[in-house]
Amino acid sequence: MSFDVIKKEGAAKRGVFHTVHGDIQTPVFMNVGTVAAIKGAVATTDLYDIGTQVELSNTYHLHVRPGDKLIHDLGGLHKFMNWTRPILTDSGGFQVFSLAGLRKIKEEGVTFHSHVDGRIIFMGPEESMQIQSNLASTIAMAFDECPSSTSERSYVEASVARTTRWLERCKKEMDRLNSLPDTINKQQMLFGINQGAVYDDIRIEHAKTISEMDLPGYAIGGLAVGETHEEMYRIIEATVPYLPSNKPVYLMGVGTPANIIEGVYRGIDFFDCVYPSRNGRHGHLYTHRGKINLFNAKYERDERPIEEGCRCPACRNYSRAYIRHLLKAKEMLGMRLSVLHNLYFYNHLMEEIRDALDGGRFEAFRKQALEDLNTLNE
Amino acid sequence: MSFDVIKKEGAAKRGVFHTVHGDIQTPVFMNVGTVAAIKGAVATTDLYDIGTQVELSNTYHLHVRPGDKLIHDLGGLHKFMNWTRPILTDSGGFQVFSLAGLRKIKEEGVTFHSHVDGRIIFMGPEESMQIQSNLASTIAMAFDECPSSTSERSYVEASVARTTRWLERCKKEMDRLNSLPDTINKQQMLFGINQGAVYDDIRIEHAKTISEMDLPGYAIGGLAVGETHEEMYRIIEATVPYLPSNKPVYLMGVGTPANIIEGVYRGIDFFDCVYPSRNGRHGHLYTHRGKINLFNAKYERDERPIEEGCRCPACRNYSRAYIRHLLKAKEMLGMRLSVLHNLYFYNHLMEEIRDALDGGRFEAFRKQALEDLNTLNE
Repeated sequence: MSFDVIKKEGAAKRGVFHTVHGDIQTPVFMNVGTVAAIKGAVATTDLYDIGTQVELSNTYHLHVRPGDKLIHDLGGLHKFMNWTRPILTDSGGFQVFSLAGLRKIKEEGVTFHSHVDGRIIFMGPEESMQIQSNLASTIAMAFDECPSSTSERSYVEASVARTTRWLERCKKEMDRLNSLPDTINKQQMLFGINQGAVYDDIRIEHAKTISEMDLPGYAIGGLAVGETHEEMYRIIEATVPYLPSNKPVYLMGVGTPANIIEGVYRGIDFFDCVYPSRNGRHGHLYTHRGKINLFNAKYERDERPIEEGCRCPACRNYSRAYIRHLLKAKEMLGMRLSVLHNLYFYNHLMEEIRDALDGGRFEAFRKQALEDLNTLNE
Repeated sequence: MSFDVIKKEGAAKRGVFHTVHGDIQTPVFMNVGTVAAIKGAVATTDLYDIGTQVELSNTYHLHVRPGDKLIHDLGGLHKFMNWTRPILTDSGGFQVFSLAGLRKIKEEGVTFHSHVDGRIIFMGPEESMQIQSNLASTIAMAFDECPSSTSERSYVEASVARTTRWLERCKKEMDRLNSLPDTINKQQMLFGINQGAVYDDIRIEHAKTISEMDLPGYAIGGLAVGETHEEMYRIIEATVPYLPSNKPVYLMGVGTPANIIEGVYRGIDFFDCVYPSRNGRHGHLYTHRGKINLFNAKYERDERPIEEGCRCPACRNYSRAYIRHLLKAKEMLGMRLSVLHNLYFYNHLMEEIRDALDGGRFEAFRKQALEDLNTLNE
């Protein structure tokens, strides 16, 4: 298990992350399958066709339904959803703090109500690690608190200190779980998460502290939650230099194609975001010249594919006019084709970024791609 | 364009129906794609994988949205939905008489309100033929009235007489349309429809009358609309002998796997039904031993495919436990996999029926299959 940086251009890195479920070519975009399925009727058998390297599933959602013990008993998430490549599971923390009702934070962890049936659930670092061990994902994320971007400094300081203590407990518990005989993936990896809201100095101190724990990867969390893009880029620039340069850096929940290009430029290796699937379900489709809204009347008789030259399953077979008709008629197939296109677009964008890095022309690529992405404005 | 009966066993026929879009091996089950897409996010590219021979689309729905003129201008339904094999379009009559509001029947046709935007639409035999010509389907259905199975004899007599006059107008209009230069499919075929509710003598007289028009195929309509299975079988037995034996007979909107086997036994060649897609979306899955309800708790940890030995895309890749989880979580993928399985089941059942007819062992197949289909009772 290691991360090979095979090329650098400024802060941007071209790497290969080795895992028990195969290599991940970085920079990479992970495709979000919240409850062990990507929204939009996308099956794991489709993912090979749209270039998915890593599938991301949600610990909180799977714990609530169908239950992580059930998934463990059925052989783990890979077997359950029939996917052989890497899976990253989040810690559940983000959902606990955003979705669940009546939460109560203590040093031990968080008590909250399930959004499905209202039952009381307790989750702390040990519980999160246990659930993720049951799911047997390739990469588990540390259990953290993600303070709001508008939180007061004193709250953020206390929260980040607790997140550090929680990370120590996560690491200890994962080491223990990985040594147990009935653990499915005994080589499960733990990524730590940097927090600190919009306070650069708290971010930097926290990055230094967690870097000492020698984890296989680190994430920057708590961004893209309301702050401006400029603030986000400033925080990434401030924080990345204090994370280990020989470990991948994962920018959680980000973002637009432009955000991703700017993230790579600032040293980010892993990304994930619900934009491509969520926008696809609403008929907002990505092209290299910007997003198009397929509900727009001008596409009613448009026989072209969503994007000319695109090799996704939607563009290879269907016209804008047909997919628009399906979306207007609320046919599930319209959402499916749109989501397949958008995920392919993101995965293919990462391939273009990797090719540019391989060829030592990322800076030129970045300028041109950002300019092109601003052409359309629908 | 002709129908070759290559084997017979009692009234059951094994045939090949030649069309401009390729041969149809009969008996055949047509897969219903109401608005130019099969519900459940099933794309035409999936249909090759599940053994679909004929796709069926709805004239009324496509007229209302996106409009048959638009589909004509984009090259017809085959090009619009990217499907090269045969397409059958219904006449719109069934939807006009069941879906639309405030309808008014006259000799000329029917005035009704669109269920989408309420606008007033007039449809008669000529309008139905024009729409189906615009769609450029392989087989167009005659515009008819489908009287309720509880209609009085006098109403049914008058209705059937009008349906006969409408059929003459349909035939004349299709001949005209097929001769026009901008008609996409100049070899579009017209199937007549037998009506007569549950009155055998009216059915028989009507069958004799329409048989004289020498159409390439005939349908039995107005069944499976409330009468018992026994009544339906009796009417089929009474009517089929009075339809041409060298033309395919299509039993519209029927039915369960048992209904289909019994229909073939009584001389039916074409079938269509929404059961496999509708039941699939509700987690009711077909097996050779009967339907299973995947919401049943006993499937929670069931690692087997929906049906052992099934070669459908769902069974080849996923377990009952996984698909059940998706259905419970209301993930579109759960519906998609269930619909793919059910359509494959129906298409594959027809293949088994054809193999049995080819081998001269249909009667033995029928008895065993009907017995097996009664094994489960969920």
